[in-house]
Amino acid sequence: MITRDWRAEIAPIDAAVAAAGRERIDNLTKPQGSLGKIETLAVRLCAIAGGIPAHAYERRTILIGAADHGVAEDGVSAYPPEVTAQMVGGFLGEFAAINAFARAVRAEVYVADFGVRAKLAAHPRLIDVHCGYGTANLARRAAIPRHDLGYVLAAGIAAYDEAAERAPFDVLALGEMGIANTTAAAAIVAAFTGKPVRAVVGRGTGIDDARLAVKIAAVEKALARIEDFTWEQIASEAGGYEIVGLAGAILSAARARIPVVLDGYIVAAAALIAGAIAPQALDYCVAAHRSQEPGHALALEALGLEPLFDLDLRLGEASGAALALPLVEAAARMVREMHTFAEAGVATKEPDPT
Amino acid sequence: MITRDWRAEIAPIDAAVAAAGRERIDNLTKPQGSLGKIETLAVRLCAIAGGIPAHAYERRTILIGAADHGVAEDGVSAYPPEVTAQMVGGFLGEFAAINAFARAVRAEVYVADFGVRAKLAAHPRLIDVHCGYGTANLARRAAIPRHDLGYVLAAGIAAYDEAAERAPFDVLALGEMGIANTTAAAAIVAAFTGKPVRAVVGRGTGIDDARLAVKIAAVEKALARIEDFTWEQIASEAGGYEIVGLAGAILSAARARIPVVLDGYIVAAAALIAGAIAPQALDYCVAAHRSQEPGHALALEALGLEPLFDLDLRLGEASGAALALPLVEAAARMVREMHTFAEAGVATKEPDPT
Repeated sequence: MITRDWRAEIAPIDAAVAAAGRERIDNLTKPQGSLGKIETLAVRLCAIAGGIPAHAYERRTILIGAADHGVAEDGVSAYPPEVTAQMVGGFLGEFAAINAFARAVRAEVYVADFGVRAKLAAHPRLIDVHCGYGTANLARRAAIPRHDLGYVLAAGIAAYDEAAERAPFDVLALGEMGIANTTAAAAIVAAFTGKPVRAVVGRGTGIDDARLAVKIAAVEKALARIEDFTWEQIASEAGGYEIVGLAGAILSAARARIPVVLDGYIVAAAALIAGAIAPQALDYCVAAHRSQEPGHALALEALGLEPLFDLDLRLGEASGAALALPLVEAAARMVREMHTFAEAGVATKEPDPT
Repeated sequence: MITRDWRAEIAPIDAAVAAAGRERIDNLTKPQGSLGKIETLAVRLCAIAGGIPAHAYERRTILIGAADHGVAEDGVSAYPPEVTAQMVGGFLGEFAAINAFARAVRAEVYVADFGVRAKLAAHPRLIDVHCGYGTANLARRAAIPRHDLGYVLAAGIAAYDEAAERAPFDVLALGEMGIANTTAAAAIVAAFTGKPVRAVVGRGTGIDDARLAVKIAAVEKALARIEDFTWEQIASEAGGYEIVGLAGAILSAARARIPVVLDGYIVAAAALIAGAIAPQALDYCVAAHRSQEPGHALALEALGLEPLFDLDLRLGEASGAALALPLVEAAARMVREMHTFAEAGVATKEPDPT
């Protein structure tokens, strides 16, 4: 089904380059380690760039994968499914949260329609990679037929390429919109991590106990059909179009040596799929934040990614990833523009008294 | 000693304005509360502005208070005291961490020399509010003579006015530079919070156990001289020039209804002094981050401020405050630019099934 050999196409990170980046950072005019997570981020940027980054990541694009989920019909979300298309309208009309944040961080916003349950009119900010009018209901049967997965993954690659053509970028932030997609993400995270369903199912947009029980039951039904725990079976049973599509976008970014800033829970599920296809792709990922969704922390742990911040977000739309973009620029400028103690003529530490 | 009546000069926050801001935020096209701390920040910006902010806080200034501390002679820091002036040279030469961060967040940097132990040459980014060539050694006697406190506070007001004149700003980020100033901050935080000295003394720039013991002893000696726990006695015994000066800058910003973004431990100590002078000044403050310094969390708790993020920083220089500036812009743009459900024509929540 996968016609490309991603493990061969994505370059592994060079540990020596990362070590050289760390050494330069340790000699900059500040106590070692005093910039905490910004230093760790800078080391990762050096590793991704194959040396000191050549720029400050000022060309930045936010790509939002949108799709509908059949399981929404069971009432797992507090919002009706037509809200997916309405919110996409908001992104394109530029009056949604992500647009406000994108203006604050000077980023371009594109929406990839991987499978919204409505025909969307063409728009300069919309990328049409439609795979179907929503997935099947994962509580009843496979959300995506297994033989369709390659097509959906290719849609993600096409979305990446189209976004890069419309506005070339140095860093990519990924987000999503899809009513009921925390249900699909929970099934994926449970399948990849082996954690109990109750630990990975949260209240999403804010549901009550009754809806929560329906949501847990839906995830359990999808999990019961998973036997071999390959990414193909997990993605097929759980969906969704935007999750598999975003996995394709992550693989594309890694192949292009572009850092990918991950938003919340749903994008973490996409990263788990990308990591199953090519583990080295995760070295190109930056986790922006830890969301209010309880399963997100478990997913990040499985991905081996430490989030930059906790802002108690649970919106999606790439809102958290957008807010991390200035930190990427700050980390790059730190390693590119700060002087070392020797360059600056600043005294280093005194020997400790003994 | 204080010739101004700050409690009369600083307007209290209007709770009705804050509530109106919260109501608008609750009606924007997103689940209520889903933008977590960004929403809380937006409510505070509304309260400070007296309504929906009229702008996105794009004119921003970082003001770094610099001064030397007599206690440095006891070896409480891993760095020699001349590093204070050398680092100020770095800020003015624009190759220090804060300059890299300021470029990343599009902010102007000014340095207020409140009392560096060297004569600094004039520079367009330097504000000369010199109060003395470093404070006295707080391990031996009062760091600042009590009759000088009014002068130092006035220096902070003058620094604020001068920065505002050189480049008008909508938001002010405060930071500091001063070898040994975590020792002074620890004494201030211990005095204001009543916490044990060991809980508020950290390793600063990264000191070993021997220096840590000297640092703890120094703080204990300063505390032993404090009897009445007024801000005047605390500030006089502990110092330093930049801490008291920054307290003056905080009061000035609050009087001008300008949000003040606080950096780390030392600026928190300055805010404790400002809050003792006029408690309502703290309503104009935003805590950027929780640093690695153990006493910082205790100081923030005493200030009643919840930090936006933890990035494991311990540099100072306003580095953490700088990184919070895009969040201020994002919060302002959210409340100013997002549409409500009604404006956007997006369906609201379905009634929960019962």
